[in-house]
Amino acid sequence: MQTEKISETTKGVYIIAATPFTDSGELDLESTDSLTDFYLEKGVTGFTILGMMGEAPKLTEEETLTVMDRVLKRIDGRVPVVVGVSHASNRHVERLSKTAMDQGAAGVMVAPAANLKTDEQVYNYYATVARLLGPDIPICLQDFPQVTGVHMSVAVILKLIDDFPQIVMLKHEDFPGMRKLSEVREQSTAAARRRISILVGNGGLFLPQEMLRGADGAMTGFAYPEMLVQSCALFDQDRGEEAEDLFNLYLPLLRHEFQYGLGLALRKETLKRRGAIRSAYVRRPGPVLNATDMAELGRLIERQDRLLRERGL
Amino acid sequence: MQTEKISETTKGVYIIAATPFTDSGELDLESTDSLTDFYLEKGVTGFTILGMMGEAPKLTEEETLTVMDRVLKRIDGRVPVVVGVSHASNRHVERLSKTAMDQGAAGVMVAPAANLKTDEQVYNYYATVARLLGPDIPICLQDFPQVTGVHMSVAVILKLIDDFPQIVMLKHEDFPGMRKLSEVREQSTAAARRRISILVGNGGLFLPQEMLRGADGAMTGFAYPEMLVQSCALFDQDRGEEAEDLFNLYLPLLRHEFQYGLGLALRKETLKRRGAIRSAYVRRPGPVLNATDMAELGRLIERQDRLLRERGL
Amino acid sequence: MQTEKISETTKGVYIIAATPFTDSGELDLESTDSLTDFYLEKGVTGFTILGMMGEAPKLTEEETLTVMDRVLKRIDGRVPVVVGVSHASNRHVERLSKTAMDQGAAGVMVAPAANLKTDEQVYNYYATVARLLGPDIPICLQDFPQVTGVHMSVAVILKLIDDFPQIVMLKHEDFPGMRKLSEVREQSTAAARRRISILVGNGGLFLPQEMLRGADGAMTGFAYPEMLVQSCALFDQDRGEEAEDLFNLYLPLLRHEFQYGLGLALRKETLKRRGAIRSAYVRRPGPVLNATDMAELGRLIERQDRLLRERGL
Amino acid sequence: MQTEKISETTKGVYIIAATPFTDSGELDLESTDSLTDFYLEKGVTGFTILGMMGEAPKLTEEETLTVMDRVLKRIDGRVPVVVGVSHASNRHVERLSKTAMDQGAAGVMVAPAANLKTDEQVYNYYATVARLLGPDIPICLQDFPQVTGVHMSVAVILKLIDDFPQIVMLKHEDFPGMRKLSEVREQSTAAARRRISILVGNGGLFLPQEMLRGADGAMTGFAYPEMLVQSCALFDQDRGEEAEDLFNLYLPLLRHEFQYGLGLALRKETLKRRGAIRSAYVRRPGPVLNATDMAELGRLIERQDRLLRERGL
Repeated sequence: MQTEKISETTKGVYIIAATPFTDSGELDLESTDSLTDFYLEKGVTGFTILGMMGEAPKLTEEETLTVMDRVLKRIDGRVPVVVGVSHASNRHVERLSKTAMDQGAAGVMVAPAANLKTDEQVYNYYATVARLLGPDIPICLQDFPQVTGVHMSVAVILKLIDDFPQIVMLKHEDFPGMRKLSEVREQSTAAARRRISILVGNGGLFLPQEMLRGADGAMTGFAYPEMLVQSCALFDQDRGEEAEDLFNLYLPLLRHEFQYGLGLALRKETLKRRGAIRSAYVRRPGPVLNATDMAELGRLIERQDRLLRERGL
Repeated sequence: MQTEKISETTKGVYIIAATPFTDSGELDLESTDSLTDFYLEKGVTGFTILGMMGEAPKLTEEETLTVMDRVLKRIDGRVPVVVGVSHASNRHVERLSKTAMDQGAAGVMVAPAANLKTDEQVYNYYATVARLLGPDIPICLQDFPQVTGVHMSVAVILKLIDDFPQIVMLKHEDFPGMRKLSEVREQSTAAARRRISILVGNGGLFLPQEMLRGADGAMTGFAYPEMLVQSCALFDQDRGEEAEDLFNLYLPLLRHEFQYGLGLALRKETLKRRGAIRSAYVRRPGPVLNATDMAELGRLIERQDRLLRERGL
Repeated sequence: MQTEKISETTKGVYIIAATPFTDSGELDLESTDSLTDFYLEKGVTGFTILGMMGEAPKLTEEETLTVMDRVLKRIDGRVPVVVGVSHASNRHVERLSKTAMDQGAAGVMVAPAANLKTDEQVYNYYATVARLLGPDIPICLQDFPQVTGVHMSVAVILKLIDDFPQIVMLKHEDFPGMRKLSEVREQSTAAARRRISILVGNGGLFLPQEMLRGADGAMTGFAYPEMLVQSCALFDQDRGEEAEDLFNLYLPLLRHEFQYGLGLALRKETLKRRGAIRSAYVRRPGPVLNATDMAELGRLIERQDRLLRERGL
Repeated sequence: MQTEKISETTKGVYIIAATPFTDSGELDLESTDSLTDFYLEKGVTGFTILGMMGEAPKLTEEETLTVMDRVLKRIDGRVPVVVGVSHASNRHVERLSKTAMDQGAAGVMVAPAANLKTDEQVYNYYATVARLLGPDIPICLQDFPQVTGVHMSVAVILKLIDDFPQIVMLKHEDFPGMRKLSEVREQSTAAARRRISILVGNGGLFLPQEMLRGADGAMTGFAYPEMLVQSCALFDQDRGEEAEDLFNLYLPLLRHEFQYGLGLALRKETLKRRGAIRSAYVRRPGPVLNATDMAELGRLIERQDRLLRERGL
């Protein structure tokens, strides 16, 4: 079922959905369902599936389609779903994008190809993709240089906004990158340019600061999405101080999940402990938690639970 | 048809086979055949297919199997074929390796996963893969840090040789890396260790020096494989000076092809000019030759042709 | 005046001291004094000067000596001072180390040279330096791959500990790196190996977790060193829960300072607002805070101040 | 004595001068003199001193001034000297540039600071430096991303040419980078823009192709500068085929010297064998040739000598 597409006015929390596996590494579709339900119950505005944190590069093509189909069917149009379609070949980006949209996706997220070095190269990559996908598929730019190695300048982002109306969203994940966020906003205003949606990543580590700088919400996978949802809602109501007070209660654990690589294992383990999935398995090669990691995570969860109880939350 | 597997005693020229496309980017299976024939006519000892220069990451899974099947059938056991099976997921490495061997491959080539940093991490990656593939699938280690970002030390290579008899070959492509080659040989000798096959890459830029340091041949894709074949044969007959004289006639063009990224486009264009394939298309994003590049390449080919004629070659 | 040297039993907080400049970029020696006094008043156990956060690569050799002399004289033996001596040339590492020790430093901190790739290369670099400096200069290994690009494995760290008694401390700043910390501790215990001092960096972002994993303290430059001091003291008294409660009050600001590059400017600005230095100038090229950055920082400081007041701290 | 400054019309061979040391690593000023004489005898058009290949980062400030003074005095205005002034601090770039010009340098070469990521950042870095140095100090942009990690786009180069008349030269050393060279030339012509001097690096590996694409000469340190000089002269006389025939006689050795890192040791050893310097010492940490390396180099030199003799050269 087709839901509304993402657009310049999209805001809220798009959860980066994990891809659940069984303990032997097979797709666990029942957990895919229960995790989808979990996210929906926590009130997320939308989903982003098949991103890096969804272990997309480790799926076969068949698995990719299976996961996409399963999640879209389970959600059944209740909230929009963005599908990660990054790939070494533009042909694959095109094919997967079209399949996703046909099955009811709300838009696609595209990371730059590796090895793009200059503004011109980055611009040309996205320009080519935008032309391939055509005007009807909304695109979210994924700006995540820590992993892609590609640096996307404010100038490139603005020029892409000017030239391609289908580019409607920026996943803001440069680090440090808050100034970039402000510059995109300021230069959009200064030039009476189209204002696109900006959702922030990096596990939400700077969410309050980014909301105050003009972000429209978060696109990240923190295992307590209810906090992201509530914080973004409070910011939306201009209750930033309350939003940040709430955020800070979760900050110790959120910071813990922020560890590159290991973070995915911590996040899956937390989702498992919360009953959202049955196994915390991460496909190999990938991080595996040892006893110390498990105890450390448990202690942080316990501290957070205690704190929330004390506040009556 | 099953051919002999690669082993510690493998030597000669394993050509890194290009994957031909039509001008619109589809697989060109007729060119796959003609290119296979071309390489065979030039006397290559073996093939390596589906490597990075074969644009493997840009193929769909179906295309991957199609290419593998086509090449193996065309060769029909006349020479051994190594199949590149590198992938972000170990499950895929395993599956593709087993499929390849079932269809008659002589062994598999595995590049390290991205983000391996220390000796222990590199060792563990290959140890895991070797155990997954079992003792019957010969493995070629691909040491290509310029592209993978992973540095494989001599100590790791030696320990892998000690621990996994199925690791029988090193594709030596570090740069500069000649000392590494010598150290592997020296430390093998010193410790009465198994001597594995070492075939060199980097377009063959240092082939004569590497042969003198103990390499067993080349695994690269230079568009004039007949030179690689003849040079290696001469080295094998202890006629190193002649081998290097021959090599140097081709060095200007070989050096030209050595340009990272652009090199693949130059190589395909040369193969097209030599009649081996019908289109020089490289899948996007990828390098495209402009008029200056074409003229420059033509001039270098012409100069080489003239020189060869002058020498009666 | 010579103070006690650092050793395997060193613990507590070694503050990474900023280097104060005037608004026109000259050394501000009065601020050097006042900053030194500030750190001492906050109870730091020791100092680390002329590290990367001390803008050491931007000082002339004369300025380097001036800063070293000024700080050592001001401290006058009250607490130990570690001097950063990293340099592209081993000769300079040696010369600066000897000068520092002659003037009363307690030890030196050495980052690896750029471009070291394998365990063997990292080991050989430090082995060479350790031999150059001799047995009497205590060395702190600086493990900071995010900036140096060099990855130091647990195996290398342990082998260096085994072979060079003068290596007495690890500045632990890999990220994520907590497992490395645990492994160094576990493998030291397992092998009845010398237990060296481990002080943690990364702005202290994971201080509580690292203390629980066996760290001996912090070596970082957070602009509220009193929190680091008190937290470490509480951990030392096995009052980890209290320590972490305290830490978490400062976590929002500490996380804000964690931003690479920009962090130094934020830290200097905070130190200026706290009256410790007169100018927040960072030498060019370097980060400059704009009005939004300043307001954002001010708001975070205010929130922290309010929270501390509410807790009667 | 002041020589003519470099300008947009500079062409020929600017030799990247090695910095000779004694076997114990001290500056060897007699060898500095003899090496200077050697380069002059081979007919170089100019010098570039204190670049990366001159081990500039491994010199003390005093040594830097000593070398600069010694070379400038020895040359005594006979040919222009460009001085490398790259440094982490703009203040140092300014100070060293002014000192160099005062002592008779013809211009300065500036590599970008590390960590510049976008076109805007690269532009701003050079704009700041150009303003600091003022209109009277000619600047050569050093575009060497393999070492600096900074990618300089054609757009940035052109904008810098437009905005700063003192930027008169590009050291072209991107790899692969020939298309960049062509684009700078074409876009200069198209826009009736100032045509700056372009001298090529990368050891000269693509010198003939680059001259045909519009380079004005070479700025590199190949140990046989006479070939560079004669080749460039032949290209200047539109005798490109002869130039390339000559070049190709040296190509095997030139390619051998092209090995990053090790290349400097090979170059110094060759200069020593040619009698230009007394010791091939490279400051530590740095490459050291072993017996195999030495024999290999000797064999390549011998082969080249034989070939030159056969041609009566």
